[in-house]
Amino acid sequence: MKPIVECVPNFSEGRRQEVIDRIVTAMGRVPGIQVLDVQSDVDHNRTVVTLVGDPQAMVEAAFAGIVQAAELIDMDHHRGGHPRMGAADVVPFVPLQGLSLKDCAALARQLGRRVGEELGIPVYLYEAAASRPDRRNLADVRRGEYEGLREEIGRNPDRAPDYGPAVMGKAGAVAIGARPPLIAFNVYLNSNDAAPAQAIARAVRHSGGGLRFVKAMGLLVDGQAQVSMNLTDYRRTPIHRVMELIRIEAARYGLQVTRSEIVGLLPARALFDAAAFYLQLDGFSAEQVLENRL
Amino acid sequence: MKPIVECVPNFSEGRRQEVIDRIVTAMGRVPGIQVLDVQSDVDHNRTVVTLVGDPQAMVEAAFAGIVQAAELIDMDHHRGGHPRMGAADVVPFVPLQGLSLKDCAALARQLGRRVGEELGIPVYLYEAAASRPDRRNLADVRRGEYEGLREEIGRNPDRAPDYGPAVMGKAGAVAIGARPPLIAFNVYLNSNDAAPAQAIARAVRHSGGGLRFVKAMGLLVDGQAQVSMNLTDYRRTPIHRVMELIRIEAARYGLQVTRSEIVGLLPARALFDAAAFYLQLDGFSAEQVLENRL
Repeated sequence: MKPIVECVPNFSEGRRQEVIDRIVTAMGRVPGIQVLDVQSDVDHNRTVVTLVGDPQAMVEAAFAGIVQAAELIDMDHHRGGHPRMGAADVVPFVPLQGLSLKDCAALARQLGRRVGEELGIPVYLYEAAASRPDRRNLADVRRGEYEGLREEIGRNPDRAPDYGPAVMGKAGAVAIGARPPLIAFNVYLNSNDAAPAQAIARAVRHSGGGLRFVKAMGLLVDGQAQVSMNLTDYRRTPIHRVMELIRIEAARYGLQVTRSEIVGLLPARALFDAAAFYLQLDGFSAEQVLENRL
Repeated sequence: MKPIVECVPNFSEGRRQEVIDRIVTAMGRVPGIQVLDVQSDVDHNRTVVTLVGDPQAMVEAAFAGIVQAAELIDMDHHRGGHPRMGAADVVPFVPLQGLSLKDCAALARQLGRRVGEELGIPVYLYEAAASRPDRRNLADVRRGEYEGLREEIGRNPDRAPDYGPAVMGKAGAVAIGARPPLIAFNVYLNSNDAAPAQAIARAVRHSGGGLRFVKAMGLLVDGQAQVSMNLTDYRRTPIHRVMELIRIEAARYGLQVTRSEIVGLLPARALFDAAAFYLQLDGFSAEQVLENRL
């Protein structure tokens, strides 16, 4: 099976279309790479690009995007609603097929070394590529954001980058890492009150004592209670287990699930796993799926 | 999306390996065709081949297989446990992607005309390709088998073939048709008694008053009760509905489902539909599956 990696770089520009275009074009023209999606947010002043393709080509593409971002974005003038520390802010590699999370961590280190050495930009490895346990969590790496990190980077040895100089230019610093595919999963309840959705979100999420690879919050969407989630490792915390736990917690408030939704993309295997669970399928293999044999 | 058709021709030879090889080779060497599976049964004296590929190439491949079978198999000397009427006995076209059941019926007619005109073999169109309602069911088309049809074909106008002469040679006659993908689905119960499995099979199957596209029987497998099924149109009678009906019927005997299994291949969509049902996914599209975007 041909290895295919996903890369989802986040850039600190969501307003100037010509800048966004130049960054995306620089990445998309690398042979072996396909741009699946470009989402710009004006309030966040941030753009998230989804690329898929050959692993080595992806390192080239990500590097080309970072070069453009460093050239075109001046962090001294960047304002936006989303935490950020660099022009190219976060660059995660995600295993899709024929390669592992470890392979993706190796790609992150390879890219990180090049960015540090050739561009002189401080690089922090995070999540599955992290060099230290306290750098696994992106929020910890990005603490203080561009302005705070600029002051601290040369003074606090704890914040020394994994690659590149302990000095920040106008391009800031970049977090490069590896993570499993992320699934955005929302569940709606038959209630027009946000409070039970918030209580259920607390119950199912990792930070509240719930399932390990669930981030969740409760809110009202068009007047209906919603538990909004990111599932950060669907192999170890599968969708069906999250769903069934929500049903149980909802029942405690006399509520039921009315519907759910997947926002964006997800791997086929996440749905195969859910079907196999509910249908009690034993010995099922993805090799039994016709499309995988074509 | 490139159209891909499946074809599952059944040949009346399951013992002489050199004959099987020549038939399979003749089909597999057509450019644009892939042989996924070859299953020979000695008792049935029958071989089932699964091919996938380009629709027009598939008509060529099926024709090449029928030519070989007609040349190498003499139905006057064929004995076996499975009903049959010809050397090439049944040739169904199955839509996999980018084409419809109607498109497959057109392929069946195209192949049927060629087989009738060029090979002089009587052809009966069946299922979605049938020219008359009483020829939709394969068992009706094949009534009397090779020996019975040979006597009737020239005398009974009701049994006149759709293509080819109303005369049978040693290659017999062939049924050519179109049908949706078939899913072989077995459900096990916590019982060592075949009787409740048989009662549940009667309840869920079409012939017993149950779901339209379900064929089912109850039996013991390694001492465990099993409901063994063919789902003949998973879009209209989806797996989850069959499963939930079995659960309800089993509960009436105080029994539960212990596990299930898919035998052979199934389309990804059958599992996506099951996941979407149990997870109550609204607005889900196969376009959201990453692998479909690669």
